[in-house]
Parts: sequence; structure tokens; C-alpha cells
Amino acid sequence: MKKITIVGITGYSGLELFRLLSFHAEAEVVAVCATSHIGEKLADAVPQFEGLTELVISEFDVDLAMKNSDVVFFATSSGVSLKLALPLIEAGFPVIDLSGDFRLKNPDDYEKWYKNTAAENVYLSKAKYNLADLTTATATYIANPGCYATATLLALAPLVQENLIDLTSIIVDAKSGLSGAGKKLTESSHFVDVSDNMSMYKVNQHQHIPEIAQQLHDWNEDFEALQFTTSLIPVTRGIFASSYVKLADSVTFDTVKNAYQKCYENKNFVRIRRQLPQIKDVVGTNFCDIGLVYNEKTNILTIVSVIDNLMKGAAGQAVQNFNQLFGFAETTGLQFMPMI
Amino acid sequence: MKKITIVGITGYSGLELFRLLSFHAEAEVVAVCATSHIGEKLADAVPQFEGLTELVISEFDVDLAMKNSDVVFFATSSGVSLKLALPLIEAGFPVIDLSGDFRLKNPDDYEKWYKNTAAENVYLSKAKYNLADLTTATATYIANPGCYATATLLALAPLVQENLIDLTSIIVDAKSGLSGAGKKLTESSHFVDVSDNMSMYKVNQHQHIPEIAQQLHDWNEDFEALQFTTSLIPVTRGIFASSYVKLADSVTFDTVKNAYQKCYENKNFVRIRRQLPQIKDVVGTNFCDIGLVYNEKTNILTIVSVIDNLMKGAAGQAVQNFNQLFGFAETTGLQFMPMI
Amino acid sequence: MKKITIVGITGYSGLELFRLLSFHAEAEVVAVCATSHIGEKLADAVPQFEGLTELVISEFDVDLAMKNSDVVFFATSSGVSLKLALPLIEAGFPVIDLSGDFRLKNPDDYEKWYKNTAAENVYLSKAKYNLADLTTATATYIANPGCYATATLLALAPLVQENLIDLTSIIVDAKSGLSGAGKKLTESSHFVDVSDNMSMYKVNQHQHIPEIAQQLHDWNEDFEALQFTTSLIPVTRGIFASSYVKLADSVTFDTVKNAYQKCYENKNFVRIRRQLPQIKDVVGTNFCDIGLVYNEKTNILTIVSVIDNLMKGAAGQAVQNFNQLFGFAETTGLQFMPMI
Amino acid sequence: MKKITIVGITGYSGLELFRLLSFHAEAEVVAVCATSHIGEKLADAVPQFEGLTELVISEFDVDLAMKNSDVVFFATSSGVSLKLALPLIEAGFPVIDLSGDFRLKNPDDYEKWYKNTAAENVYLSKAKYNLADLTTATATYIANPGCYATATLLALAPLVQENLIDLTSIIVDAKSGLSGAGKKLTESSHFVDVSDNMSMYKVNQHQHIPEIAQQLHDWNEDFEALQFTTSLIPVTRGIFASSYVKLADSVTFDTVKNAYQKCYENKNFVRIRRQLPQIKDVVGTNFCDIGLVYNEKTNILTIVSVIDNLMKGAAGQAVQNFNQLFGFAETTGLQFMPMI
Repeated sequence: MKKITIVGITGYSGLELFRLLSFHAEAEVVAVCATSHIGEKLADAVPQFEGLTELVISEFDVDLAMKNSDVVFFATSSGVSLKLALPLIEAGFPVIDLSGDFRLKNPDDYEKWYKNTAAENVYLSKAKYNLADLTTATATYIANPGCYATATLLALAPLVQENLIDLTSIIVDAKSGLSGAGKKLTESSHFVDVSDNMSMYKVNQHQHIPEIAQQLHDWNEDFEALQFTTSLIPVTRGIFASSYVKLADSVTFDTVKNAYQKCYENKNFVRIRRQLPQIKDVVGTNFCDIGLVYNEKTNILTIVSVIDNLMKGAAGQAVQNFNQLFGFAETTGLQFMPMI
Repeated sequence: MKKITIVGITGYSGLELFRLLSFHAEAEVVAVCATSHIGEKLADAVPQFEGLTELVISEFDVDLAMKNSDVVFFATSSGVSLKLALPLIEAGFPVIDLSGDFRLKNPDDYEKWYKNTAAENVYLSKAKYNLADLTTATATYIANPGCYATATLLALAPLVQENLIDLTSIIVDAKSGLSGAGKKLTESSHFVDVSDNMSMYKVNQHQHIPEIAQQLHDWNEDFEALQFTTSLIPVTRGIFASSYVKLADSVTFDTVKNAYQKCYENKNFVRIRRQLPQIKDVVGTNFCDIGLVYNEKTNILTIVSVIDNLMKGAAGQAVQNFNQLFGFAETTGLQFMPMI
Repeated sequence: MKKITIVGITGYSGLELFRLLSFHAEAEVVAVCATSHIGEKLADAVPQFEGLTELVISEFDVDLAMKNSDVVFFATSSGVSLKLALPLIEAGFPVIDLSGDFRLKNPDDYEKWYKNTAAENVYLSKAKYNLADLTTATATYIANPGCYATATLLALAPLVQENLIDLTSIIVDAKSGLSGAGKKLTESSHFVDVSDNMSMYKVNQHQHIPEIAQQLHDWNEDFEALQFTTSLIPVTRGIFASSYVKLADSVTFDTVKNAYQKCYENKNFVRIRRQLPQIKDVVGTNFCDIGLVYNEKTNILTIVSVIDNLMKGAAGQAVQNFNQLFGFAETTGLQFMPMI
Repeated sequence: MKKITIVGITGYSGLELFRLLSFHAEAEVVAVCATSHIGEKLADAVPQFEGLTELVISEFDVDLAMKNSDVVFFATSSGVSLKLALPLIEAGFPVIDLSGDFRLKNPDDYEKWYKNTAAENVYLSKAKYNLADLTTATATYIANPGCYATATLLALAPLVQENLIDLTSIIVDAKSGLSGAGKKLTESSHFVDVSDNMSMYKVNQHQHIPEIAQQLHDWNEDFEALQFTTSLIPVTRGIFASSYVKLADSVTFDTVKNAYQKCYENKNFVRIRRQLPQIKDVVGTNFCDIGLVYNEKTNILTIVSVIDNLMKGAAGQAVQNFNQLFGFAETTGLQFMPMI
């Protein structure tokens, strides 16, 4: 049983972590931290938790966290953990960071895409970006991947790793539900503006682009750039990523299908589907579902990948990384069937 | 052709007025006023209007308004027109006020329910609260009814006017879509909080209660109080009011049905439906649809009334009042079929 | 570990039972039955289960069910279990029946409200209607309450049991999401007809009315009838019941609040909330949340009760009854936090 | 004033035509035809029309139609007008056909994509496929473009006509609301399956693909094929098409923007937007809004085009074609502002 501090409890990812860890057989949440609601009961700040927890929201105190808990989860906005986490890194204390602060190895990339001063290299180098379905968490500082990045990278991994496509041809048209945009109140999150609507945003400027590009380049040094766009659709949870790539010369669709099977066989949370998956197939679960269709006329492979952005795209993958880090069965606390 | 100034252009009611009046055969919007976006083109502040209007948002100037236009529409929050409209009242200049500032005849009621200082009696007395389907706008200052009040009063009018029910038995369970709550950003308007949800709010405290009670009492001096609750449902437009009343001794359901037929025969915008109406039957129109079911076992009559809160519940009824005031055909600019 | 047969696997309640029982520590689903898709893998009939189960859908065979399993769950339409369950009743074999077939003690009521021939008295008398938060399952044949009935009865129990209200004054305005209406394809379940809409249906004719009345009368023999209406709102899961009652002479709001506290203290799944609850506070959980507001002017108490219709209103309560019946901790397999 | 027969009144396009033509200053609907509800009042079959029309639904009789009306609109499923319209073609009687039956010039294409026997060449050759914003209806038989085709073709026209792109690079990721899928009841139109969901369908098999390809090839004979996918999003009305193309060598983004301006200047219903458009910008209107973003790193131009699928994508464009055909002002009956 590991004791857990969650920093950033009032955001969607923090709440989702709390929901998952509350009934995790190997976890006990001992502290929930935020920058507002300090001293208030969590069940007062979040009324739907009434009667379910006695925890009080506190300010994050790094010494207390290290004294009272075994691991710290950061579910904070960008710019927070790069300040608060430094003593934890220095102490080699386990951290799972859901924010983008330690995902990019190149500080210049961070500064360009996040418009913020990056952590120093000495700290960045300690963090491991761990896509939990492809590699196993080992470092004590885990940079948990972003939601769009997870859906995109799991969709493209076999193709890029095995060199099956024209690497200049990658186009990803990704759509997200509103919980992905966070709890902040903006005109674009007002029900009237979202319902019965769809909009594209941050075209060519989304901060998950460099994270995707970094990983693709790690997998295949010939990769240079991809076209990646993000849209909002009127759903609460879910990412639906449609990826389009041209197959490399002489690569067949059978070769492609075999590569996916091989890449994901024995993986607990990636399902290569016979039919194209829908968002509802994964909502409430930690699955990433992937479907494939090939068009002979255009030589284009369409890959559909879907995740629950708060589960596999945030808190679920964070718990999976936690399980890996501490040697628990990977599925502990994550065994959910899809929910209608 | 009447020239029109709209004050409060940036809210939902203001935008809806603009939408309706833009293609009204007898109207020309000459000025759009607000307290923000001053000097900006309306089509810049409201991007979906790009290419459709050259108007620039200005601060409201009462002298200019009287000089350049024939009528002023206030689509403002409570507390605004009770200040800005006084010179118009003094001048006997035509005003249609969609806010609650001049609806209540008793200033104490206004102060209790709106938590705001009321206009003085000398001004209040000049305003006429005009439910456009039951009486005809004549006064130059029209207090346009509230959305919940319109749906409720049209549902109850024949019963209360004709003394057909136990006046102590009225219970109204009204539900509204999110456009009724205004454009202000609050947690309760965030898509994630609204979608797949329903909530009751302002129980026994909604500011439309005194407006409803005042009108019911005008119709029948024995009326004292009603139970009225309001809930939010995840739709953009629409009010669905379920009213429950006990029939008075010896009143039959046939008598009741006849009273509705008589009350609303030859009315352009109230439909007594054979089936219970749904919200979608009236969205985009100026109709109020009403359906009736009687339960012999409990002696309770269920009345369902539905309106589009931005049309019949705000801008549509305001245009109807405008048409009446200036002697145009009542349906001018309001002939819309329901939209799927 | 109990072995389980689910009959009616293809409906929403059957699927929800499967979801809950798949990871229930004391349960193993060994057979899933239906009248269609016989011989097909469950994971083929329900593609979102791909990779999660090897079960094959079979026709219900009562002997096999008794041989291979410890309990049968019926998640069937009305008219099915009253035929299929008779041998199980004769054998005293444990059954949890989510349908309405064995809820009403009076066969005439069943025939009137369900338009169907009732089971014979000798069978009906063996079934226990068990509202799991108020009584404990003991009989081997459990008639699991209906969704609307659960939300309504838990809202009214303290008032009716303790004689705190005018029993002729009960009016319940209940709203349900679409999963409550079942998977059958009808015009009224088409997205275009449901979205941005609200409609009232089966007024004074809903088959949960006699079930509610029977239980209220059991609690208080002076009870005769209630006004109960049902509406559809555009949400997937959830019931929101607004109940209105007049307090009995000399009963105070404090007395009322104390009665609720006493009735539900130490109950695992009923929360008397300080604020009015919303549907999202309980979606994905087995909770019934209740909130209270009193209006001195009208002497009316407003009670809001919310449940997830597929959990507390169907499969969740069924699992709770299962836990009670077999002596497991009542919360086994039901410990879910509310989900945003 | 032209007299109109609508065939296929019970589908979404038929109802939308009726809505638009009911208040069109130059049109009078004299007959509404269907294959069901024959002899029933339209206002009984479509309850939201109660009180708004006295028309009775009749079977289509081509002689009566030619005798009593000036033009026939077909809003029928594929396979209907290719049978019913032949006498009208022979007589040179004006027809506006919203179905796909006369859009493809090559009967083999029709048979391949629609799985249906095509009309004979002698009839097909009389029909003109008329994208009303780019060419003017002149032929008496107008094949009104499909919804996806309209959104896609208006987005690509300047690029393909002016040879500004790599013609092998076109990828269109199009999303539609549920009204585009028709009124037919299928599991995929059930609210529970659509809400909070997104799914891709008919990949590489959508019947609008040949229609788009035919037009692109007409504009530029070097065009061969495009990648085109369609997804369902949980909205009622609207198409959101994201198109991705590589600019041709030495073509700049400025050249591209100028080409769009030139192509659509003085067009009533196409707006080249400064910002990327959203679905709500056009719902309820006959506009197609287009936005452009260029990515220097990938040399990819992203084009977003949005339409209301029942207006510009069906009935609205049909009325526009009607206006052109009979020489009325193109905007007659189509002047709607976007609706929140």
C-alpha cells in the first residue's frame, strides 16, 4: 500500500486521479493539494464527493509530501511542476507528472510551444517520458504523456518504428471532448457555444505537437514533421484521432496489420479492433482502441484511435505508470469495462 | 419602416433581436449599444455576423437614440434600464424593455427579488407589462414579460381568469435551456457541468416568481401564492413548464378544454395542442404550445407549455409587442415554422 | 465466488449487470442468455467488449442454469420472467429479477398497467419486492425495484413512514435519460428527436405508478394515490425526480430533516445532501442523493432525488440485492466515485 | 408566384423544403407527396405543424403534378426519382432533384456506388449538376448537390480550378450531424449511441465520393482521386469538413487567399472568413463559410468549410437553384442570420 499526494486536485485530471486511487487496492491518497480552497474539505469544494472523503485541501509542502507519502502526482497546469518538483528530483523521490513540464527534452521547444521558461537540463534529464503501453516506467520521475499525444503515438508507433510509411505524409485530424480543455471558464467552454457545434483550434500551434514529434523522431530518425490539427466536439470525454499516411513502396496492408498485431500483442490496454472503434467503446476505461482501413486507389492508410482523455490520456495512464513503477500488476485499479 | 436602437447587443436577447429585426420588413436597426466592445464593428465582436452588417457598437446616448431612431429596445441585465430609460419615459418615447426593471408595480417586490433599488413609482406607473398574446401593446413603455413568466402565465391564464381551479394548488416545475441563463461564464454553464446533467436552482427564489404572482393576482384577486421551481436541462433553447393544479369543485375537464379554446382562439402564436407538445415543436418560432391531461384519480390537471425562451420568451415577443405598438400585422417578421 | 447466469444480456440492464459483475470479487458470470444472437460471441454482438470476454450468447435453459450457476439475473422485458422463472421458483433457486413481472402483488394491477397476463398468485407470493436501501434481501426470489420507483420511494420514505405530510398532496415530476427507455429503436429515441428537446410521456399511465403506490400504501395505509409524471431529457443516464408535498399540520422542516437523517443514517448508498443534488453527482455510482427545500409561503416541501437509472435504478441495486442475499459486504463491486 | 409539388415530404430534406417554401415570397406549396401517410393531413403526420397547414399527403401523380404545379422537388431516397421523374424529363418540366439519382454522368459509377440500376443516358444527359454558388441553374432538370459534396467542393474549387495544389495530395476528413444520416431508425441513430460519441463510417465507400471526383475532374482534368472520410458527431445539423492539401511548387499562401477571394467575391452565400468558422456560424442559414491556415513546415494548407447540411447541403441550395431557375433574386426566402 503506497501513500499518495495529489497536487492539483481541483482540475479534471486531479479529480480523476482521486476517483481512481480511492478504490485502488495498493494506494491510499493521504494529501490533496491545490492553490485555492486551502483549508476547505475536499467534499465541500467538490460537492459530489459529500460523504466520501474526509480529506482537507492543503497547500503543497514538499517536505511534508516526502515525509507522509511514497509518491507525488502532479496534475497541474504547465509551469507549476517545473518549479515545485525540483526538490523531489534532487531527492530522487518518486513523481508522476501529468503536466507537460518535463516531457520535452529540449528546453527551447518547451519555451517555444508553452511560452514559458523551461526547467533546466539537469532536471529535464532525470525525467522519463513514458508511454506506458510501449515502455515500462523505471525512472523515479515519470513524465506522463499528453492526451492527444497518447492517441496519436499509439496509432503511429508500429508504422514509424517499422518504417512502413512515407514519413513526410503523416496527417492527424484529432478531435477532443471538453474535459480535455480543462475546467477554466472561457466562452469556448460555455454549453451554448459547444453544444451542436464543432470548432478547430490552435491549428499548427498545439503544445502536444513537439511531444509527438520528439517521440516519432526517437523511433525513426528520418521523421521530420507531421501535420496535426485539433478540434473540439460536443462530448465530455474522449479523443478521436483520424490519422492518414501513405504506405511506403512495396508495403502491403497485410504487412501493416501484422505490425500492429505484433506491436500490441500481450498489451493490456491497447486493442487492435476488427471494426473501426468509436469513442464510447473506451469511455470510462484505460483502453486505446485502434482500427485500420486501407484505400488502394490513394495508397492511404486511415488509422482511427480512440481514448478516454481523462483515463488513458491522463489519470488512467498515470495509475498505469504508478503500477509499473512500484511493481504492482499493471491492471490494478484499472479494470473497467466500457460504459454505455 | 421604423428605425431601431438596440441596447445590450452582446447578450443572447440582444443578438436574437438583431437576428429578427435584420430581415423585418418594417424595421431597420440603426444603432447597437453595449458597455463593452465600444467602437468595434458588430461583425468583429460577433464573428458569425462577418459580412452581414456594417454597424459599429456604440455607447448608449439617449439623445442620439431619440434623434436617430423611432424606438429603443433594452435587452439589458436588471438594473440598467431603470437608470438609462428615465429620459425616454419623460419624453414619452417608445421603449420595449426586455429586462425585469419595469415589470413589477411594487418597488418593494423589485428590491426584494432583484436585490436592487427599484425605479420610482412615477416611472414604474408609465410602463405596461404586456403579455402580447393576451393584451395589446398600447403604452409607449412596454415591459416585455420574462421567459419563465410567459410560459407559466399562458399555461394558467384560462384557469385563473375563469376561476376553474383551487387557487392554492398551483405547482409549476419549469425547466430551461442554457441560453436562458445568459452568456455569463459560470461553472454551471461549462459544457462539462451541463451536458448529461440536470440541476434545480434558485428554488423559491427565482425573480420571475413575483412577476407571475402579480399577473395571476391581477386576473383573480383570490390568488395568493404558487409553488414555482426552475431547473436547467442540457438544451440550448427552450422552456418546458409542467404545471399541476387541482380542478375546482364541479369543474370538468371539458369545461377546462373549452376555456383554453376560447381564450386562445384567433391568437396567432398560441397553439392548444391535441398531443402534449415538446420543446422542438417551438424552437425557432414565436409559438407557445400548450397541452392538457387530466387525472380523475387525483383530480389533477397537468398542463405542459413550451416556448423558445429567446423568441416567445424574449426577442420574439418583443418584436410582437413592437408590431402591436406601431400597428403592423402582428406576425410581421415572426413567421417561422418549427425547425428540426 | 458465486456463478451467475444473466438472462437478457443484450439490453441496457443486462449489459450493465455484465459490466458490474465482470470485476465483482465474489461473482463469475458463466452464462449470458438472450433470444437473439444465439451462438454468437458476446464480444461480436457487443463490439466494445472485443477482447474482454469469451462468453457465447445462448438460449436460456433453466436446467442448465440451475446446474451451472448459483443465481439467475433476469434483465428482461415484461412478460418474460413470468414465464421462464416458474421452475426456478418451484425449486427455490435464487433469482434476482430486474423486470416488473413480480413486483406487483395484485395480478389485476399487473394486467391493467402492463397489458399482459400476470403470473399466478402462488408464484407472485414467493417474490419479495426489495428496495435494497431500506430492507434486506432474504427471499430467494427478489423483485428488483424499477428505476423511477427507486428514485421516488427513497425520496418519500421518511415522509410517508413517519406520517409527516398530507398524503393526498404528493406530486412527482420525474425525468429520465434515454437509457431508461431501452434500446428499442423508436422515433422518440432518434438522436435528432431527443437532442435539444424534452417531452412528457405516458402521463398517468406509467407502469411504475402501481409499484410506487403499492409500496407507499404498505408504509402507510392511509395513502391512496399520487400524481406522477415522467419526461425524457437529453441525457444518457440518470433520473431526476422532483417531488412536491404539503407538510402535515404542525410538522416543521426540522422534524422533516431529522426524519431523513434517521431513516438513512448508516446507509451505504443514500446521501442526504446539504445542497440539492444534480444527476452528475451520481452517474456511474450506486448512490441515491436526496436534497430538501421548504417553502413557508406555500407550505410545500420540494424533494429532489437523483439516481443513475442503470445503476441504483437497475443493475447496481440488483448487485446490492445479490450481495445481501449471499451475505457479502453490501458495497462489494459497487464502490464507485461519481464520474465527471 | 410558382406552385410547387414536394415529393418525399416525410424525410428531413422534405420537411426543410416545406419550412423554407412556406414563407417564400414567390412560392406556394400545393402538393406534398410520400409513400406512407397517404390521405393523412401533413399536420397530423408531423405534429409540430399543427395549425400551420391544411395540406393532405398524397401519392405522387406525375400528371397531376404537371397540371397543378410549376416545378417538382424530389427529396427522395436514391432509386426513386430515377423512376418517377422520367415523364417530367420527357416533358421538359422543371425539376429540382435533391437525391443522388441524376448527379453522376456515368451510369456505371451510379451502379457501383449506389448499388442500384442507373437511369439511362438519354435521361442523365438532360440533368445539370448545379453547385448553385459557382454556376447558375439553367437546365430544367437540376441535380442538387449532396451535402458532403457541397462542403468539400466549395472548399476545394479555387485550388483545383486554378491548379494551385498537388492534385494527388487531397485528404478530406468530413464530419456530419445526425440529420444528415436521415430519419431511418438504426442503432447508430439511437440517442444513447450518438450522444457523447463519435464514429467513422463508410470509409472509402461514401456515395458522395464519385460526385466530388466527377466535379473536381471537370474543373481540372489532371485530378484523379482524393482521400475522403466521413464521421458522425453528436450534433443535429451541420457539416464540418477539414481538408488538407499540399501547395504546388512556388505557390504561396497569398496566391491561395487571393484565389478564394476572387472565386467567391460577390457570392451571396459563401463567406471567406478571417477566422476558422464553426458549425454554429452557419446553422439555420444558407451560408458556406470557409477558413484557411497554412503550415510552412509541412507545406500543407488546412481548409475548414462548414454548412448546415439541411440548408446549403440540401433544401437551402435547392431553393437557391429554384430562385435561379425562375429568375428570382437568388436570396429570396433564404435571408437568415446565424442562430445561436
